[in-house]
Amino acid sequence: MTRPQWCSETIIPSVRMSYKASRILARVKTAYQKAVVFENESFGRVLMLDDAVQTSTADEFVYHEMLAHVPLFTHAGAADVLIIGGGDCGLADEVLKHEAVRSVTQVEIDAKVTELAREYFADINGSVFSDPRFELHHGDGAAFVRTTEKSFDVALIDSTDPVGPGRVLFEPEFYAAVRKRLKPGGVLVVQAGVPFLQKHSFSMAIRNLASTFAVVECYLLTSPTYFGGHMALGWASESLKPDSVSLETLMERHAASGLKTRYYTPQVHKAAFALPPYIGEMLARAKEAR
Amino acid sequence: MTRPQWCSETIIPSVRMSYKASRILARVKTAYQKAVVFENESFGRVLMLDDAVQTSTADEFVYHEMLAHVPLFTHAGAADVLIIGGGDCGLADEVLKHEAVRSVTQVEIDAKVTELAREYFADINGSVFSDPRFELHHGDGAAFVRTTEKSFDVALIDSTDPVGPGRVLFEPEFYAAVRKRLKPGGVLVVQAGVPFLQKHSFSMAIRNLASTFAVVECYLLTSPTYFGGHMALGWASESLKPDSVSLETLMERHAASGLKTRYYTPQVHKAAFALPPYIGEMLARAKEAR
Repeated sequence: MTRPQWCSETIIPSVRMSYKASRILARVKTAYQKAVVFENESFGRVLMLDDAVQTSTADEFVYHEMLAHVPLFTHAGAADVLIIGGGDCGLADEVLKHEAVRSVTQVEIDAKVTELAREYFADINGSVFSDPRFELHHGDGAAFVRTTEKSFDVALIDSTDPVGPGRVLFEPEFYAAVRKRLKPGGVLVVQAGVPFLQKHSFSMAIRNLASTFAVVECYLLTSPTYFGGHMALGWASESLKPDSVSLETLMERHAASGLKTRYYTPQVHKAAFALPPYIGEMLARAKEAR
Repeated sequence: MTRPQWCSETIIPSVRMSYKASRILARVKTAYQKAVVFENESFGRVLMLDDAVQTSTADEFVYHEMLAHVPLFTHAGAADVLIIGGGDCGLADEVLKHEAVRSVTQVEIDAKVTELAREYFADINGSVFSDPRFELHHGDGAAFVRTTEKSFDVALIDSTDPVGPGRVLFEPEFYAAVRKRLKPGGVLVVQAGVPFLQKHSFSMAIRNLASTFAVVECYLLTSPTYFGGHMALGWASESLKPDSVSLETLMERHAASGLKTRYYTPQVHKAAFALPPYIGEMLARAKEAR
């Protein structure tokens, strides 16, 4: 019998979230970060990278559905999708549920993370690795975007916080390189942190997006393991505005897709753009500071 | 110099949130519960009751604005408001911002909690105690509702979780007693827990409301210190439906009120009723089980 241990999240110095690990499945130091996989009574299997929860089998659907389906149902005709990061492959799993998608190109820097994901998170990514539309690269996402000749309809940045290997994915040079790889009408969506507690990361992401793209907005989700209030996703495009599609159109597209979702609905999609003023004001200030 | 201590929240056995207390301002055992007031770098002054965060000066606006303004802007003409619980008096502060409100009757069981709130949380309740419309009783909220002859337009249950002294405020007998004290067109809104982690509390509240009232719905908010995803507020009325008021009408009422809010807007109000299916399905099942 293994004695329970506690795995603590320490992103914010003044609050510590500790998860009781009924079993530690893996604990490794990769080339880039510390990775721990453990089981928790409330959240199922949990992946922590550098002491921050990235994924749990119980609540990953919230973040992955919102990161995938909001741009994909807005764009509608997206065929080629780029994912940077997303090592647990739960995002690719959601994206590949769209039948119009004919390729998902994913670039994850840490091969060890995808190896852990294949071994321990088959529940959330099981169908991905056998899907011929899925192409996984291990390497530096920023370098890949600078050198690839492929173009994309939708680019999704499923990064860690802007510390460690994820840092470069919040910088204007990276956003400019992604912009060059987007087809006309294309859209980039990025993980932009928890505005209440990570004002700096959020503002930096929005400011840098706004210095690169004509259309910059953000939308919100509420995920149990992302502590501290709403998580924001940044939306950036040269031409595709999130409010260009009506609720009725989203409902038609969603119904036609046959997708079964546990967080996303067309109504939740629209509601996610209703920002509390404390976030809306941060967004406006960051856009002005571009 | 005081050495920092950690105050831990332990509602869920498998996850523990620990707040670094740069200063403990009060730590008392009241007649009903343990109460601690401390200062935290991210959340300002924090009130914990029985090891659960109730209020922080940094994020109380989320919960108090949504609990007050959603029913008050829907009802519009509310003159007499009942608050059960709400010992920190931050909710009364929001309610009293509505000029049409001519009385706020609050019943808090624990006089020690309001004493701590007066001493340490003047930032969030400062104007309440000198407002002639505010009438504070210390006693059992359930007994008060059974015996008072006063009627109310809006009743708000700002309770702790359904353990300890808050337990009775989730029971059908209590809801039935509130129903008798509501004027025609009146509405009851209750704290109904965090559906993701507190399935039982949420379902119990909804089931018991649905056994008593003709109209039962729920709406959501995302508050940084309430861990585990959305918090749900249960809506119950004999006749007032939350969707009976259009966005345009809410915008007119909000503009006319002159209220400065940091979380609430008419758009956020409407968006709060867009339930992710995982919550919508729990709501539907609980209503059917009445």
